[in-house]
Amino acid sequence: MSKFWSPFVKDLVPYVPGEQPKVANLVKLNTNENPYGPSPKAIEAMRAELSDALRLYPDPNSDLLKQAVADYYGVQTNQVFLGNGSDEVLAHIFHGLFQHDQPLLFPDISYSFYPVYCGLYGIPFEAVPLDDQFQIRAQDYAKPNAGIIFPNPNAPTGCLLPLEAVEQIVKASPDSVVVVDEAYVDFGGETAIKLVDRYPNLLVTQTVSKSRSLAGLRVGLAVGHPDLIEALERIKNSFNSYPIDRIAVAGAAAAFADTAYFEDTCAKVIASREKLVEGLHQRGFDVLPSAANFIFARHPEQDAAGIAARLREKGVIVRHFKQERIAQFLRISIGTPEQNQALLDTL
Amino acid sequence: MSKFWSPFVKDLVPYVPGEQPKVANLVKLNTNENPYGPSPKAIEAMRAELSDALRLYPDPNSDLLKQAVADYYGVQTNQVFLGNGSDEVLAHIFHGLFQHDQPLLFPDISYSFYPVYCGLYGIPFEAVPLDDQFQIRAQDYAKPNAGIIFPNPNAPTGCLLPLEAVEQIVKASPDSVVVVDEAYVDFGGETAIKLVDRYPNLLVTQTVSKSRSLAGLRVGLAVGHPDLIEALERIKNSFNSYPIDRIAVAGAAAAFADTAYFEDTCAKVIASREKLVEGLHQRGFDVLPSAANFIFARHPEQDAAGIAARLREKGVIVRHFKQERIAQFLRISIGTPEQNQALLDTL
Repeated sequence: MSKFWSPFVKDLVPYVPGEQPKVANLVKLNTNENPYGPSPKAIEAMRAELSDALRLYPDPNSDLLKQAVADYYGVQTNQVFLGNGSDEVLAHIFHGLFQHDQPLLFPDISYSFYPVYCGLYGIPFEAVPLDDQFQIRAQDYAKPNAGIIFPNPNAPTGCLLPLEAVEQIVKASPDSVVVVDEAYVDFGGETAIKLVDRYPNLLVTQTVSKSRSLAGLRVGLAVGHPDLIEALERIKNSFNSYPIDRIAVAGAAAAFADTAYFEDTCAKVIASREKLVEGLHQRGFDVLPSAANFIFARHPEQDAAGIAARLREKGVIVRHFKQERIAQFLRISIGTPEQNQALLDTL
Repeated sequence: MSKFWSPFVKDLVPYVPGEQPKVANLVKLNTNENPYGPSPKAIEAMRAELSDALRLYPDPNSDLLKQAVADYYGVQTNQVFLGNGSDEVLAHIFHGLFQHDQPLLFPDISYSFYPVYCGLYGIPFEAVPLDDQFQIRAQDYAKPNAGIIFPNPNAPTGCLLPLEAVEQIVKASPDSVVVVDEAYVDFGGETAIKLVDRYPNLLVTQTVSKSRSLAGLRVGLAVGHPDLIEALERIKNSFNSYPIDRIAVAGAAAAFADTAYFEDTCAKVIASREKLVEGLHQRGFDVLPSAANFIFARHPEQDAAGIAARLREKGVIVRHFKQERIAQFLRISIGTPEQNQALLDTL
């Protein structure tokens, strides 16, 4: 602690992202990246931006990308907010929409960045336990709150909450904002964006980092009622006028336009997942039902941290969380069929 | 105001960036971009990133770019902080280093984002008047404060504070952080980075948006004592693990390495500035002494807003601020010799 720090800084417990190893030739199944590269049309669109025009600021509103997102989801551009990765979008949401008198609610087993944002903005929260099957129970969220947020499918479990249950949560808290964090929805879920026109308190976040294979680019988004988007725009314009660079705007817009490539790669990941689950079952693992591009698995007799360490020695990285209730699970990203087979062979 | 907003959101007065027009063929001298494109080596480095590897997250610490910056300035990597444009770096500085009991101090005529950050984080501030010649007076900052920030050269005046006066300000407030915002320093100033090893309360920010012609890429940085950098890293890692994308890391690092191109383009801008000032003098304008890539000029008989409007009609954009003390000035970015001549001809 330095005397120069704002007092809250000493109490921050920053998020720890999964390892980004600097050695090559690893089977990297630890940070839920897509095993396939981005759309060739996205690459081409980015290449076209590599010119002297990079001397100029980008469009502060990223209108080209807003329109591409609005077109894809069939909404208006004033229902779309964009950020430098969905983590930035989430940060602005916590800051701009979750500071009220009651505690914020999110699942006890969930994206571990949520309590970090609460620390950053001084937001009290209550972690709502998943049930014994590691599922979100909609009725548990029907109580006074400053807001509700959960991933769907949930992370790191991969479990999907059906859209009717999502709607039940949204309906039960009409006076606070319910955020459905859909980073993984394209691998087997149904987006709640189709409900935003009916519920002014519903906000849905997504990212190009997973299903659109552009984690290296940093673009995330939120879709909801224009009043919610306005709060986020006010914060964004009080924080950084130009959060998304020229290349990222072009690449992400092209990725949204190339639906054929997107659907093809998502289908391949889903098929690989089913095969990986089968292989893990054969090796004695329990696997939670997953609608994501990762699975959450445990072995009834082997220690999860030990398995992760042995895999690491052999060049296969998966993610292990030292956290109550899930310390015996491993989160394994879906790789290519070859990567998944390498994992199974190593096990 | 929506009931869903965190209460502070309704009082935000967001920053308004200069216009980024969507029509071509304008002489755009309104947002202080470099008239020359980025280094060809930077373009080449970005091109090499356009691959399937974009499916992977970037290095959360951007070590390659940190090293390039540290090498350029002769400092250690733990003295360097990076962000998604220097506006994001400044936001984290306001949040993490300026929340103390006294007011923050900055010049009354300065970067108009500073009071916006104060609104975002609830920081009281005191605007310290420039003197009659629109200069910062070092002795005016020797009073109790929660921190001090000023651009050097100042914006929108372009006036430079000599390094001895910067040091005087830093010395007079050893218990608070002094931030020197050097977005424009490469066009005629001397960087205060050479003082950071002697003053643990000195933090210097820079950007690749101006002298390195990469406004379209969004990379900014701060250099200072490791304790100050640690506060910023804690905030960054509680806000967004990966603020700088793969392409931006590579492009900015290559731009820092290509010192020959950088020095050549800066020299050209400086030479153009001197010629533009001469032309404006001939047309009856008063011009403040500038060490930046823009000049601040007024005409003793013509209304500034009127001049700006007439220039706009003829396809030349400059920036006018409706603000006390400077409402009769125009801020004119330095263009190529041809653009500057077009401006003079239009006047």
